[in-house]
Amino acid sequence: MSNSKARILGVDPGTGILGFGVIDAAVGGRTTLVDAGVIRTKPKQPLDERLIEIYRHLASIISKTRPQVMVIEKLYFAQNVTTAISVSHARGVAMLAGKLAGLEIVEYTPLQVKQAIAGYGRADKKQIQEMVRVLLDLKEVPKPDDCSDALAAALTYSTSIKIS
Amino acid sequence: MSNSKARILGVDPGTGILGFGVIDAAVGGRTTLVDAGVIRTKPKQPLDERLIEIYRHLASIISKTRPQVMVIEKLYFAQNVTTAISVSHARGVAMLAGKLAGLEIVEYTPLQVKQAIAGYGRADKKQIQEMVRVLLDLKEVPKPDDCSDALAAALTYSTSIKIS
Repeated sequence: MSNSKARILGVDPGTGILGFGVIDAAVGGRTTLVDAGVIRTKPKQPLDERLIEIYRHLASIISKTRPQVMVIEKLYFAQNVTTAISVSHARGVAMLAGKLAGLEIVEYTPLQVKQAIAGYGRADKKQIQEMVRVLLDLKEVPKPDDCSDALAAALTYSTSIKIS
Repeated sequence: MSNSKARILGVDPGTGILGFGVIDAAVGGRTTLVDAGVIRTKPKQPLDERLIEIYRHLASIISKTRPQVMVIEKLYFAQNVTTAISVSHARGVAMLAGKLAGLEIVEYTPLQVKQAIAGYGRADKKQIQEMVRVLLDLKEVPKPDDCSDALAAALTYSTSIKIS
């Protein structure tokens, strides 16, 4: 993004629960929350139905909020392969939803997110969540975690445009 | 599928190479090859570009060949998590492409494919490939492996409708 304002969609992918957060960021200005929440699908549903539900819900959020950028954390490893497989199906679908809607897709490592939000790479989950709350001037940390993680990803991008 | 004829699209998912195979199957009739091949994307391309390329290519194959069913192997484990992550991104996108085009999506375990094609679950890759060649009355085994694996998945479905 070369302009000084941006509407950013952060996504924390998952098949059972996918967090999203939309923020407005401007160079030198306040960063504000536009929308945030989660998309849940039922474990008993067939995978193809869960994926199209995620796609349609996310496409609808994009069409309503019209962000220019989608930010999504890179996935290097997971606690187990089953989790990695499940998250990656949803992550692929989420990236496609953004790409099909013409968004720029930006991927950050978990380390980049921690460094951008908390200033150092060893920040724990609670510190990141508290920084999300402070940066967006919210009374409480957005819940559930998937939602604040999505906002942390979006804020990582907004931090980078503020510095540039 | 309750009718006696079906056009089936088999998919062997992957981000670098995705195999596809389209067959026509009829109860009591011959099973014939309609189209088969692979979609390749470049490792140096950003993931979002690779995924949209896979999506568009697959959507175009579906629109040209008009199958009713997409068959795709279930992914339980992989040699390593990195492979599982890469395959799952493409697998999610492939399933979505099928679902958005109105196809029925069928998932089989690798064991189900082996049992349906070779008659027993311990069949090796070469045996499966040879059976694909025989079942489709081809002179040679379709290459690369991703292509014959996709056809094996499609044939697993056609075997099931022949039995029913």
